[in-house]
Amino acid sequence: MEYYSSHINKLIEQLSRLPGIGAKSAQRLAFHILNMPKDQVEQLSASIVNAKANVQYCKNCYTLTDQEICPICNNPRRDRKVIMVVENTRDLAAYEKTGKYDGVYHVLHGAISPMLGIGPDDIKLKELMQRLSQDDIEEVIIATNSSLEGETTAMYISKLVKPSGIRVSRIASGVPVGGDLEYIDEVTLLRALEGRVEL
Amino acid sequence: MEYYSSHINKLIEQLSRLPGIGAKSAQRLAFHILNMPKDQVEQLSASIVNAKANVQYCKNCYTLTDQEICPICNNPRRDRKVIMVVENTRDLAAYEKTGKYDGVYHVLHGAISPMLGIGPDDIKLKELMQRLSQDDIEEVIIATNSSLEGETTAMYISKLVKPSGIRVSRIASGVPVGGDLEYIDEVTLLRALEGRVEL
Repeated sequence: MEYYSSHINKLIEQLSRLPGIGAKSAQRLAFHILNMPKDQVEQLSASIVNAKANVQYCKNCYTLTDQEICPICNNPRRDRKVIMVVENTRDLAAYEKTGKYDGVYHVLHGAISPMLGIGPDDIKLKELMQRLSQDDIEEVIIATNSSLEGETTAMYISKLVKPSGIRVSRIASGVPVGGDLEYIDEVTLLRALEGRVEL
Repeated sequence: MEYYSSHINKLIEQLSRLPGIGAKSAQRLAFHILNMPKDQVEQLSASIVNAKANVQYCKNCYTLTDQEICPICNNPRRDRKVIMVVENTRDLAAYEKTGKYDGVYHVLHGAISPMLGIGPDDIKLKELMQRLSQDDIEEVIIATNSSLEGETTAMYISKLVKPSGIRVSRIASGVPVGGDLEYIDEVTLLRALEGRVEL
C-alpha cells in the first residue's frame, strides 16, 4: 500500500492480528493512535510491555497475576476446600464479579478440543490433579463453558476426579435470566427442561 | 478489580480508551496479548511507538507519511494540476485503492462542524488555499464525506475557490453500486434522482 507510510502499514498489520480486529478496524485504530498525544501513545505501549513482563501464573491456581500466589489464593477468608475449575482468567473474573463465590479457583487455560488438537496435557489438568492429591479438597465445581469443548472437558475432569471420592459438580445450564424463550436455541431449552427444579 | 493484577487492569484500561473497544473487548484483547509470545508483544508495542515517532504530515498535501513529501506528491506520473480534497488519510487510501485516480490530494484532517466547534481554521484549509495560489492548479475535486459536516465543508471550499477561476467539482452522491433501493434512505434517493445522467 504505497499510500500509507511503512510505519503506518506496520502498525495496521500488527493491530489486525489481534482477535476481533479486522482490516478496517485496524486502520481506524492506527489513525486514532497517530492522532493521540505522544505521552498517551507511550503509556499505551508501556502498558502492553509491562503487562507481558510482569504477569505470570499463580503457582497455586494458575490464574494470571503479578504475584507468586494470587490475591484470591492468598485471601484467608476464602474456602480452600472448594475449587471452581474455569477455562480462563476472564471466566474467573466473571464469577468474582458476582461477589457470592467464596471458594478458590483453578484456571485450565483452555479446554479439551480434538478438533483443534488440544488434549488433556495441553491444559492445566495435571496441575489440578496434583492440587487434589496434596490439599484437603471437599468439592470441585466444574465451570467450563457450555460449549462442546467445555462439556468434553467437564466430562473428562469428572471421570478423573470421581474415583478419589471428592464431590464433583457442574454449574447448571439453562435459560439465562431475562432471556426470552422465543430467542433461545433448542439445546438450551432442552437442557433447561432436563434440569428443572421443583418449586 | 482484585481478581486481575494491576498490570492487567492498566492494560485493559489503556485498550478500552481506543475507539470502538468496549470493556469486554479490552479484556479479551488484554488476555490475548498476555498469551502472545514475548517477541510478538514487543513488536506490537514497538510498532505503536515507531509509527507515532516517525509519521508526520506531508509538507505538500498533509497526508500522514514518514517522508517530508509523501510518495504520491513525489510521483512524477501523478497529475499535479488536479487536487482531490479529502477529510483524512483513510479517505485518500479509499480512492487510491480504486487505482483510477491519477491526480494528487489535499488532506484536511477534519471537516467544518459548528456542532463540535470545528471551524475553517481548525482544518488544513489555509494550506489548501496557499497551494492553489502558488501552484498551477486546474481543478479541485471535493471528496469530503456525504455527511452534514462534509457537505458544509464542500460548500465552504467551493465559495472560497470559485473566485480564483479554478474549476471546482464535487464527487457524485447517489445510490451505492449493488445497493438495494429498498434499504436506502430518502435523502440519498432524492440525490440520486437529482443527479441522474442521460443514457
